[in-house]
Amino acid sequence: MNCWGEQFRVTIFGESHGAGIGVVIDGIPAGVPLDLEEIRREMRRRAPGQNALSTPRNEKDEVKFLSGFFAGKTTGTPLAGLIENTNTISKDYTPELLRPGHADFTGFMKYGECHDYRGGGHFSGRLTAPIVFAGAIAKQILDQEGIKIGAHILRVGSIVDQAFDPVTGSPELFDTIRNRTFPTVDAEAGDAMQAYIVEKKNELDSVGGIIECSVTGLPVGLGNPFFESVESKLSSMMFSIPAVKGIEFGDGFQFAEMPGSMANDAFCMQHGTVKTKTNHNGGINGGITNGMPLLFKVVMKPTPSIAKPQQTVNLKTMENTEVSIRGRHDPCIAHRAVPVVEAGCAIALLDMLKTK
Amino acid sequence: MNCWGEQFRVTIFGESHGAGIGVVIDGIPAGVPLDLEEIRREMRRRAPGQNALSTPRNEKDEVKFLSGFFAGKTTGTPLAGLIENTNTISKDYTPELLRPGHADFTGFMKYGECHDYRGGGHFSGRLTAPIVFAGAIAKQILDQEGIKIGAHILRVGSIVDQAFDPVTGSPELFDTIRNRTFPTVDAEAGDAMQAYIVEKKNELDSVGGIIECSVTGLPVGLGNPFFESVESKLSSMMFSIPAVKGIEFGDGFQFAEMPGSMANDAFCMQHGTVKTKTNHNGGINGGITNGMPLLFKVVMKPTPSIAKPQQTVNLKTMENTEVSIRGRHDPCIAHRAVPVVEAGCAIALLDMLKTK
Amino acid sequence: MNCWGEQFRVTIFGESHGAGIGVVIDGIPAGVPLDLEEIRREMRRRAPGQNALSTPRNEKDEVKFLSGFFAGKTTGTPLAGLIENTNTISKDYTPELLRPGHADFTGFMKYGECHDYRGGGHFSGRLTAPIVFAGAIAKQILDQEGIKIGAHILRVGSIVDQAFDPVTGSPELFDTIRNRTFPTVDAEAGDAMQAYIVEKKNELDSVGGIIECSVTGLPVGLGNPFFESVESKLSSMMFSIPAVKGIEFGDGFQFAEMPGSMANDAFCMQHGTVKTKTNHNGGINGGITNGMPLLFKVVMKPTPSIAKPQQTVNLKTMENTEVSIRGRHDPCIAHRAVPVVEAGCAIALLDMLKTK
Amino acid sequence: MNCWGEQFRVTIFGESHGAGIGVVIDGIPAGVPLDLEEIRREMRRRAPGQNALSTPRNEKDEVKFLSGFFAGKTTGTPLAGLIENTNTISKDYTPELLRPGHADFTGFMKYGECHDYRGGGHFSGRLTAPIVFAGAIAKQILDQEGIKIGAHILRVGSIVDQAFDPVTGSPELFDTIRNRTFPTVDAEAGDAMQAYIVEKKNELDSVGGIIECSVTGLPVGLGNPFFESVESKLSSMMFSIPAVKGIEFGDGFQFAEMPGSMANDAFCMQHGTVKTKTNHNGGINGGITNGMPLLFKVVMKPTPSIAKPQQTVNLKTMENTEVSIRGRHDPCIAHRAVPVVEAGCAIALLDMLKTK
Repeated sequence: MNCWGEQFRVTIFGESHGAGIGVVIDGIPAGVPLDLEEIRREMRRRAPGQNALSTPRNEKDEVKFLSGFFAGKTTGTPLAGLIENTNTISKDYTPELLRPGHADFTGFMKYGECHDYRGGGHFSGRLTAPIVFAGAIAKQILDQEGIKIGAHILRVGSIVDQAFDPVTGSPELFDTIRNRTFPTVDAEAGDAMQAYIVEKKNELDSVGGIIECSVTGLPVGLGNPFFESVESKLSSMMFSIPAVKGIEFGDGFQFAEMPGSMANDAFCMQHGTVKTKTNHNGGINGGITNGMPLLFKVVMKPTPSIAKPQQTVNLKTMENTEVSIRGRHDPCIAHRAVPVVEAGCAIALLDMLKTK
Repeated sequence: MNCWGEQFRVTIFGESHGAGIGVVIDGIPAGVPLDLEEIRREMRRRAPGQNALSTPRNEKDEVKFLSGFFAGKTTGTPLAGLIENTNTISKDYTPELLRPGHADFTGFMKYGECHDYRGGGHFSGRLTAPIVFAGAIAKQILDQEGIKIGAHILRVGSIVDQAFDPVTGSPELFDTIRNRTFPTVDAEAGDAMQAYIVEKKNELDSVGGIIECSVTGLPVGLGNPFFESVESKLSSMMFSIPAVKGIEFGDGFQFAEMPGSMANDAFCMQHGTVKTKTNHNGGINGGITNGMPLLFKVVMKPTPSIAKPQQTVNLKTMENTEVSIRGRHDPCIAHRAVPVVEAGCAIALLDMLKTK
Repeated sequence: MNCWGEQFRVTIFGESHGAGIGVVIDGIPAGVPLDLEEIRREMRRRAPGQNALSTPRNEKDEVKFLSGFFAGKTTGTPLAGLIENTNTISKDYTPELLRPGHADFTGFMKYGECHDYRGGGHFSGRLTAPIVFAGAIAKQILDQEGIKIGAHILRVGSIVDQAFDPVTGSPELFDTIRNRTFPTVDAEAGDAMQAYIVEKKNELDSVGGIIECSVTGLPVGLGNPFFESVESKLSSMMFSIPAVKGIEFGDGFQFAEMPGSMANDAFCMQHGTVKTKTNHNGGINGGITNGMPLLFKVVMKPTPSIAKPQQTVNLKTMENTEVSIRGRHDPCIAHRAVPVVEAGCAIALLDMLKTK
Repeated sequence: MNCWGEQFRVTIFGESHGAGIGVVIDGIPAGVPLDLEEIRREMRRRAPGQNALSTPRNEKDEVKFLSGFFAGKTTGTPLAGLIENTNTISKDYTPELLRPGHADFTGFMKYGECHDYRGGGHFSGRLTAPIVFAGAIAKQILDQEGIKIGAHILRVGSIVDQAFDPVTGSPELFDTIRNRTFPTVDAEAGDAMQAYIVEKKNELDSVGGIIECSVTGLPVGLGNPFFESVESKLSSMMFSIPAVKGIEFGDGFQFAEMPGSMANDAFCMQHGTVKTKTNHNGGINGGITNGMPLLFKVVMKPTPSIAKPQQTVNLKTMENTEVSIRGRHDPCIAHRAVPVVEAGCAIALLDMLKTK
């Protein structure tokens, strides 16, 4: 099912080369004034063509409100948004040649001949645009509660950006990063990453990356033990983003080498409130937020569409062959995925807040 | 909500020191003969006291069938299982001293004074026993479809076990590992890990670890793009297991440093079937199984209960203080978590199979 | 939440005077060829202006496919349909005068000032158009399984139509009724009902009615005991249709006066199959279909919009006053609700079939 | 699936002749003190053997708390309750003789040979005991919000009890009725009903009835337009009660004969609040509570188990035959169903209140 959430529910639809893609958002409170310019800004962060690294496709991700928005405010009923597809060149694809790393084979096996393969069809990364739209609305609602979300590229190849401060969460950096065309904390690291991506592109190849996300201002008590832990909810949403292949909270995989005495975050009083001195647990204890910044990282695999020749199978002849993927593709999607990660995070947190 | 799944739904209940813990499983087909001895074997794998590393608590995890099982077979109606609590020493806990790394603070903030703090209450790792029980049933159903699940400890501290073969999934090792009291592929690595854990225990400390899980025999086409991807479903379940702080599929976080030409798994014909030559993607493309072994790793943080004195806050006086945790605690839970990971994986996969 | 169903899920959105209304349908199998003309025919049955009894509004309920439909067949991914609003005269409404029998007051209390009151906003009966669209698709899928659905107006005022045969379900009548502008079995009863409705209209009043629905060709075993009984699922859907205020299965409220010896349906062998001689239970035993025709009736209350002056409250002044509702309104909606009942029934049954 | 509710979720399990029946209730707030004696009183109202009309089975419906209740208060985690089966005589049943009006045939077709047919198995009316238990807890929580629920037998055969006042809802009668062994407003009508039931019992037959339920003190704004209307939620729950075959809100099926000018409830100011003068709509406009008493009626079909010989089929031989049902059965279940209707209503309303 293409919907997510209990009390703030997002349903997406569309194919990259069909009539349009869109979203229905249910559970928005009535009377929320929406800053449309801010929504457009978020959409642009994800849109291609912001810098040399992105595909030159000129996708106009203008969202048309179909319902749920009246006289500048939300109505409390389902808000539907539609992005009409305009710039769709479908001749670039030869559907019978399975592209390695793509969903061509699994899509064919699941949906059969009727799969709309053009541009990845429903599997297209373009479907993250409606997620960014829904997330932009969720962010505005969270912002009113003092909850701020920020993300940046932490790593591309072996180049590492400066991490957010685990104890403060670094909210003062969020706006700065948001306004950069390449979202890193350290602009020099960002330049080095971009140079590396261009280098790989010139080799007809692509690269992956790690995105770090931080949330500040969360109340204590979101989430639940076991099946509805904050980690369960957030990971379920993050793995809905194409190309995400891993997630870790707080120190994550480093916990394997840490003793408990280092992994535990000591409690202490701070301005009359219980806080922790460190934040190895990423703001979560027992599946529930503890009032410290929420911190997690996701890894994006390299864009599977590369121009280098690759071995594959022709589905029609069922014979081994080669494929060289033409068309306009990003050599790295991590930077365009940063607003998608923030959006998914906002959607998941708002749903948790509403079912608290 | 303490339930998981759409068509194979597991609902857990209970506190570690209350009358009992249990599970209601809905969506089991009628007429499945259950191997009760096999279920008991799975329960014992998780139970404490299997080796020197586990808490000496003598938990008798005998499950009483309350419903859904008649004349040796499932009836198709909800199967309820109850484990009565017998050996509960609750004087070991001083609830007002927040134990670092535990859910004491978040549980108090969420449930208030009425939280049953004894032994972690509903947050207790003991609640994984019903998950293992449900998973043991799911496994027997999956086994009939030729689907095999196995897991082992891949890493503790800096000691690394031999990984499963990504292309074959190594199903031939599953039974061997299952019968070991310390579940590693390489017995020597297991011995070294155990020695390291004992060492840390003697230092009044604890350790974490990484568990690798593999599934073979899965059909192509399980899962969905976006919100119900295989990764979304499995991660949602895995983060329901206390102490899990990260998950990665296939090459996971290593993708950050890989070019697409290495990350993509080339397709090839094999015995008339489309397969991939490598399995960097862990058996999943576009959120859907591709017929290769499913491969993922989860990281468990070190047991937060350590005897070393730690800084903390007294919730009654709201003052900084120290706590030294007594009681019987495992210095490492990764080995006991191995059957829990397998069980959670079985539950999630069976649910996906039923909603395919 | 504005969605219904587990494995065949329908999400509706829109306001009667906003940009448009629509639906996202998830869970349609891939490769179903859709008869678009048949879908349009169903839409026309619900559309106003078919006869003298309906509002003269000229709603063009043309549905634009946004996704999920490619090269004449469904793709297996979400099918989104949009009906753009064209003919919207909103000056007919004075939002502060609460219309008795309408959702003006409850809508205001729930959504506040931001409620899009124009033409009933999201509460509008016009939102049943997307339900008919989704139902028309569901019907085509059910039809392939030999499942037929038909409904007619059984009663308006004291005029009663001939009932469906409870044992055969009367599938041979379905097409005949479908092609009548006023859907009754007995055309004379239909004429009398229409004359009565016109009479009430001339008195500036309106009338209600009872719709009977029958389904033939259902397999034995749909539904579940207790919470997911066939009756629970169907009634949940039927009460989603505005103005429905009651539902009964089989003999329904007459059971209060019947002895068990008359209410029970005796089993008998028929062509090698277990059937019942009578069908007082409407094709359902213990919440599960028994292979006999499914039979239920719903009652629609009279259209609340009447031209007669009515006592009410002015929400701005909070004083008692009078309201006379102008605008174009149907004096009876039962006949236009007949295809909506069939559509809702089709959606509910297809969902049950997919979760069987 | 055997669970109901989004934020107050009830999961039932058990067979009438298995180890026990029970319930897991999720979403109870922490810290609610429970009046256990009041819960027992509710259980006794449903229990058999309260008067001459009920089966002489001596079911001890004592509920054992397994979890979620500690030191006199709820803990906020799942509350599980178990009723162990003690008095189970299973030799009364010959499973191959299909009992008309029962779920024997549909149960067999759904679950096959493995169906636990003893005493109706999972289909048994005994499964309503856990619903009453969950409802008794829900009632105590609603009571704290000033919400009162009462029901009575409105009709048995042609004997009619005095109805609740639609405008006041008659909360002053709730306690009186609750303490009667036969729950009617007018004690004489109750006596006449009982005499009629005994008469039918002596004829080896059974009778049905109509139950009326009223709720006072509800806030304005519960429920939603369309799929989550108050009527959808309540009907979904009511049809989970075995033998319920119809439901109507407010004037229900009488709306078919009423003009709109009579069916509409005029708004008026009352003590500074908007109220309606009449309550034909049963306290609901547009699927949302309007602050007037909620009013609905359900019809129960006659007990299908009658001693009179009935025609049927032998499932083993697949031949027509006769069955005379022995065993201990109620000639009418409407009076025992009254607390079940109240309980189901309480569960549904509390869930709506929590998702408001």
